[in-house]
Amino acid sequence: MSKLDNHLVIMAGGVGSRFWPMSTPECPKQFIDVFGTGRTFIQMTVDRFKGVVLPENIWVVTSVKYKDIVKEQLPEVPESNILLEPCRRNTAPCIAYVSWRIKAKNPKANIVVAPSDHLVTDVVEFQRVINTALQFVSETDSIVTLGMKPTRPETGYGYIQANSYEPSLRNKEIFRVDSFKEKPDLATAKRYIQDKEYFWNSGIFVWNVSTIVNALRIYLPDVNDIFEALLPIYGTAKEQEIIDKEFPKCENISIDYAVLEKADEIFVMPASFGWSDVGTWGSLHTIAKADDYKNNMIGQDIRLYETQNCVIHTTQEKRVVIQGLDGYIVAEKDNTLLICKLSEEQRIKEFSAE
Amino acid sequence: MSKLDNHLVIMAGGVGSRFWPMSTPECPKQFIDVFGTGRTFIQMTVDRFKGVVLPENIWVVTSVKYKDIVKEQLPEVPESNILLEPCRRNTAPCIAYVSWRIKAKNPKANIVVAPSDHLVTDVVEFQRVINTALQFVSETDSIVTLGMKPTRPETGYGYIQANSYEPSLRNKEIFRVDSFKEKPDLATAKRYIQDKEYFWNSGIFVWNVSTIVNALRIYLPDVNDIFEALLPIYGTAKEQEIIDKEFPKCENISIDYAVLEKADEIFVMPASFGWSDVGTWGSLHTIAKADDYKNNMIGQDIRLYETQNCVIHTTQEKRVVIQGLDGYIVAEKDNTLLICKLSEEQRIKEFSAE
Repeated sequence: MSKLDNHLVIMAGGVGSRFWPMSTPECPKQFIDVFGTGRTFIQMTVDRFKGVVLPENIWVVTSVKYKDIVKEQLPEVPESNILLEPCRRNTAPCIAYVSWRIKAKNPKANIVVAPSDHLVTDVVEFQRVINTALQFVSETDSIVTLGMKPTRPETGYGYIQANSYEPSLRNKEIFRVDSFKEKPDLATAKRYIQDKEYFWNSGIFVWNVSTIVNALRIYLPDVNDIFEALLPIYGTAKEQEIIDKEFPKCENISIDYAVLEKADEIFVMPASFGWSDVGTWGSLHTIAKADDYKNNMIGQDIRLYETQNCVIHTTQEKRVVIQGLDGYIVAEKDNTLLICKLSEEQRIKEFSAE
Repeated sequence: MSKLDNHLVIMAGGVGSRFWPMSTPECPKQFIDVFGTGRTFIQMTVDRFKGVVLPENIWVVTSVKYKDIVKEQLPEVPESNILLEPCRRNTAPCIAYVSWRIKAKNPKANIVVAPSDHLVTDVVEFQRVINTALQFVSETDSIVTLGMKPTRPETGYGYIQANSYEPSLRNKEIFRVDSFKEKPDLATAKRYIQDKEYFWNSGIFVWNVSTIVNALRIYLPDVNDIFEALLPIYGTAKEQEIIDKEFPKCENISIDYAVLEKADEIFVMPASFGWSDVGTWGSLHTIAKADDYKNNMIGQDIRLYETQNCVIHTTQEKRVVIQGLDGYIVAEKDNTLLICKLSEEQRIKEFSAE
């Protein structure tokens, strides 16, 4: 395996509606410095692949309207590697497009597909796992998913059931997948974490470009045909224009449903590298640094009195004083203020509706 | 009594610290459109004297730093009628200064002294009361205070005890004052409102200019001497410079303590014209228009879910969503956000400290 063949695909078309008002359609979660560290989610995603993937092999698939944000936040990524979706069609068309685009450039590419808005705290272990999986897919026709070893009975994630009797012959860390499971209820989630065979579906996939395009040919031929037919125009001046015309014709379908749940050579590599999808304010509350009263605070000057278990994210406020709150989200951005119980955060989409 | 002799003094030097962050040292409460009606407290104060006092007889005493705000908000008041205190010395020096200033212009002036940041809802009754009191002080050497008929056992106001056996000979609505009472505890306040002799001290005073300067000569000679000595320079280019030098020498003392509690001819005119000093967020909650769940809202787009008994004042937010709050103040201004239980609002000074 040559490092020159390693490619990274960052899927950055999400709208992050559960993080309103911090995340807005104009600037969704992946482009936000949620932790106040100076790096946004998508920047941290690129950062953790340093030394694994060369900058010219990093691809970003995003919406047309986020092109400028991506260029600004990821100056190291060549502009021609930023692929623009004219509309949202879930992950399968996105992956079909970028896979053919990469194949046109390097038919031997080994690819990591990663969401743009997740958190990884143990980057050293992350790189070891990624390198192991890349090595594996360079030697086999396998699709590898990364399964996170669960630390709690989380009902907000999908699960991957490994077949523990079938570790792969080449690598004892990698197992054949038995089945994919939808987000479970709490009782099921509790059973999953006792079984030791279930892992959180991280949405991170590793494969060789030939493997994925062959799988797409079989399991999603209509979508595959569109992008295979465009081979002659990739990298030309006509690409965007034709994509804008063809992309909307694609079925709206996830890669999980279209390919992973149907194909044969699907493997899972269980891992632990401090992963979170940071999908909700509550998950931010779980992972972010807290004060002695379990308050997470991001802001310039936040003063709390008799306040506990709150997530306070008010980066544009000069000064915030909160007295007497327990278990609330307080978030302010662009003159939009949300105050809401953490226990009610699943209603944020309702709250943010126009 | 000639209407041409009627003068209005608006005391506008307060800093409104209990209304932080709506009220700030840069723009305190009297200059704010608290109710979202398009008129600030000081503008409403001037408005309610229309037809009673001519614009050229309106005087504003304020801090040097509020000069431009006053000029902007009260364009009808001549600039030379805006008197500027170089420092805060409570109400007695303020009244001594403006009284001599008015006397220099019109020795027959009948004067109403009013705070700049109170609310009056029944302006017709207010004008009747003011005209009655002005008539009374034009015919006698009396100091008249306006006593508000209490509607609840309020512990946030001082009280005036009327001597109900001594209505004045000239006007049966006006009584001799027995005593001034500090803010009472709740038990005392309850006794006061049963006694029918106690009235809220509105801080509105009516007197003839000769009466007040004579009282100042007797009861506050040091302060009086300063401003009496300046008679030759009032209205000249030197006035401000000399005031800046002399004013700081004054004792820091209220007119209530310096004169009203000591002088003889002190009267109270009980009245009811929908008065409030709007001294706290809680008082705003009591008087402002509320929704069915007792929420007061001032803002462009405020959406409440499971929220009651709250005061929400977020004029600079485009959009506010609040879920699950009961009995809180939510106030935002100039990128300063306060969330605080209404029951804890006496701590706002603490919260707002630098």
